[in-house]
Amino acid sequence: MIIKPYGYALWENIKGELDRQIKETGHTNVYFPLFIPESLLQKEKDHVEGFAPEVAWVTHGGEEELGERICVRPTSEVLFCEYYSKNIHSYRDLPKLYNQWSNVVRWEKTTRPFLRSLEFLWQEGHTAHATREEAAEETDRMLEVYADVVENYLAIPVVKGRKTESEKFAGAEYTLTIECLMHDGRALQAGTSHLFGDGFAKAFDIQYLDKDGKQQYVHQTSWGITTRLIGALIMVHGDNRGLVIPPRIAPTQVMIVPIAQHKEGVLDKAYDLRDELANIARVDIDASDNMPGWKFNECEMKGYPVRIEIGPRDIEKNQVVLVRRDTNEKQFVAMNELNEKLPQILEDIQQNLFDQALAHRENKTTTVKSLEEMEKALEENPGFMKAMWCGDEACEEKVKEDYQVTTRCIPFEQEKVADTCFCCGKEADQLVYWARAY
Amino acid sequence: MIIKPYGYALWENIKGELDRQIKETGHTNVYFPLFIPESLLQKEKDHVEGFAPEVAWVTHGGEEELGERICVRPTSEVLFCEYYSKNIHSYRDLPKLYNQWSNVVRWEKTTRPFLRSLEFLWQEGHTAHATREEAAEETDRMLEVYADVVENYLAIPVVKGRKTESEKFAGAEYTLTIECLMHDGRALQAGTSHLFGDGFAKAFDIQYLDKDGKQQYVHQTSWGITTRLIGALIMVHGDNRGLVIPPRIAPTQVMIVPIAQHKEGVLDKAYDLRDELANIARVDIDASDNMPGWKFNECEMKGYPVRIEIGPRDIEKNQVVLVRRDTNEKQFVAMNELNEKLPQILEDIQQNLFDQALAHRENKTTTVKSLEEMEKALEENPGFMKAMWCGDEACEEKVKEDYQVTTRCIPFEQEKVADTCFCCGKEADQLVYWARAY
Repeated sequence: MIIKPYGYALWENIKGELDRQIKETGHTNVYFPLFIPESLLQKEKDHVEGFAPEVAWVTHGGEEELGERICVRPTSEVLFCEYYSKNIHSYRDLPKLYNQWSNVVRWEKTTRPFLRSLEFLWQEGHTAHATREEAAEETDRMLEVYADVVENYLAIPVVKGRKTESEKFAGAEYTLTIECLMHDGRALQAGTSHLFGDGFAKAFDIQYLDKDGKQQYVHQTSWGITTRLIGALIMVHGDNRGLVIPPRIAPTQVMIVPIAQHKEGVLDKAYDLRDELANIARVDIDASDNMPGWKFNECEMKGYPVRIEIGPRDIEKNQVVLVRRDTNEKQFVAMNELNEKLPQILEDIQQNLFDQALAHRENKTTTVKSLEEMEKALEENPGFMKAMWCGDEACEEKVKEDYQVTTRCIPFEQEKVADTCFCCGKEADQLVYWARAY
Repeated sequence: MIIKPYGYALWENIKGELDRQIKETGHTNVYFPLFIPESLLQKEKDHVEGFAPEVAWVTHGGEEELGERICVRPTSEVLFCEYYSKNIHSYRDLPKLYNQWSNVVRWEKTTRPFLRSLEFLWQEGHTAHATREEAAEETDRMLEVYADVVENYLAIPVVKGRKTESEKFAGAEYTLTIECLMHDGRALQAGTSHLFGDGFAKAFDIQYLDKDGKQQYVHQTSWGITTRLIGALIMVHGDNRGLVIPPRIAPTQVMIVPIAQHKEGVLDKAYDLRDELANIARVDIDASDNMPGWKFNECEMKGYPVRIEIGPRDIEKNQVVLVRRDTNEKQFVAMNELNEKLPQILEDIQQNLFDQALAHRENKTTTVKSLEEMEKALEENPGFMKAMWCGDEACEEKVKEDYQVTTRCIPFEQEKVADTCFCCGKEADQLVYWARAY
């Protein structure tokens, strides 16, 4: 998969904000190797079982066959663990709060642009702490950072919760997740944060001397989000006319389209306007020799939040025509009021996109109390299904096999929508979000 | 190789400035895949000959053996060419000005931290143009960008020139380079910019319809710099006490060390100072419970450009002690003058580091007119050797074999230091920089 300029610019903006928050919460960036020796990958049993079937193996370097196969990292827990085992000695070395921006490879049979690709870009945080409590706090903290970026920058509402045992990360004690709903009613896991407890620490012998002079195992976390967020963005906000990009992460927030640009003064005025607005927004101008209709179309397809049209008559009246991508609403704005109004309009669009996505998700969230009700929901209004679950993996497995519906998470915000498991009818006290997922 | 927090912070600063200049010169970032199928790598003959011996081969994905081996990119020319061949149709599609930040792998037998590692981080620009002239201009332009970043941000003077035929990039028509001299007298190639002409275009059939409706081959360039610049930084400016980081790319420009910090008011004042200076510099404070002497040592080792000491007596006198890392010079600065003086001091340090490195390079640059003079230079004052070369590869080969000395570049600034080749004694009209290199 190639990420072209517009897609990569979106990633740069997502990355920019997330990196800022990762640093603000005390983490530093590092870079660990792409390759993992097979023996190292095998050190933690659950982890290798989860990942070995989907890694790419390097067997030759140059002309020579390698003595030991190495894999291209599918994730880097074992590399960080190996490093921590050699570099953590005392409580003074803790916490270790590392993050890296990198590429990873998972040998998937079926791929889908941005959502599931053989190689993808991501950040992976790997931290080590003195106590389980600290590690658990870190796991929560990073889930909140993810939720903030996805909700407040990508304008996508999330459901926060915990993965079930069968859906958690290979090697984790538990996995927290933010789950989103796409326009077509399918769910997407948008970011995860894992508590490892001391499982990896024991496998890799990562111990430190505590204040009382006793050897203790560290407690670890890891957390990641990927370029699939670009896919989420497209599938949540896009419509039949193309993309709709939330202003806060839009590479171009405002596109100026000159009308009758061959007429004297139009282009000059349009460029002046661009230069003025450049102080308050990411603004560009389409002065190509395409027809205005073609340009409008291009603006819609690219999903620029705001389009500003300026022609001879507008210049006469000292105004511009401003068109919102989200509502298609057209308004005349006096030239001297643009500086004041534009930032507010961009914020309104940001908020409106979030509100629309939330309303859409609410409309597509059904409470179901039996398998029949699930069938009906899948047929009539597919989306999130809220249902009580007994906790038995047999029910989870059955629903997955029969309906291709998986548990998305046990939400933090619990409700008791029934007394019994919607699948087996036994007593149940956990609410779970279910859906067909990407 | 692991890049730890401080090293990675240096890379982020180098990357930040270079990325700004890459965008300012009209390029956009993209991301192309890590993997290259063997058949694709083989499309350009010189290129595959140059790189095939040093690539890592993936032969298995998950449990399955692959039908065709894929290599981990050693560089991405063939991927961009493949893309360009499908996406360039008309003169309207040109120029294509793409860049990517990525990791690459070269299976080296001997490695050296930062300078030569099996995997490294870099940026690689890949551009396609309508004419050879435009492509040649681009090749020059990007060399100038590299020279600017290395000289004005890393404070390392460069020699700009062209590689000889035997040292040019595999597949290039010619390669431009910036060459630096390390503290120990060895040269380091710090960045290269290649003109491909239409060689790749013919191998990959990258044609466009020109304004007259005729099919034409595009003309291409590529250019890259890598994490080896971190190595250059360490080896040019470092001294026996540790690193010396130029202010413009220093993650921490000023470290505040409180003296007698247990005394009332000291820490408060030190933190106030940090908050105030944060507006004009990247400033940090070491309020750990280590002794001041230990902290001073740490400041020197890390190479912070400026250390500010503040203790009870300084507070009384409304002053601080400011110590420059480059000169070790100590000065008292009145608290209310810091805001004005500090930026100037940082600029002075930046300039002084460049001047020192330049003087060092000049001292270690010897003009040689014969092999004997080269032997003498290698023994007494190893560094750059300026010598006339006849242009015969036999001489180049002999000098490489007998002295492990290679041609670094044919400098743009030519001088005629002799009439004959220093190796064979035949007529020579090209000045070449020679050196033992990393």
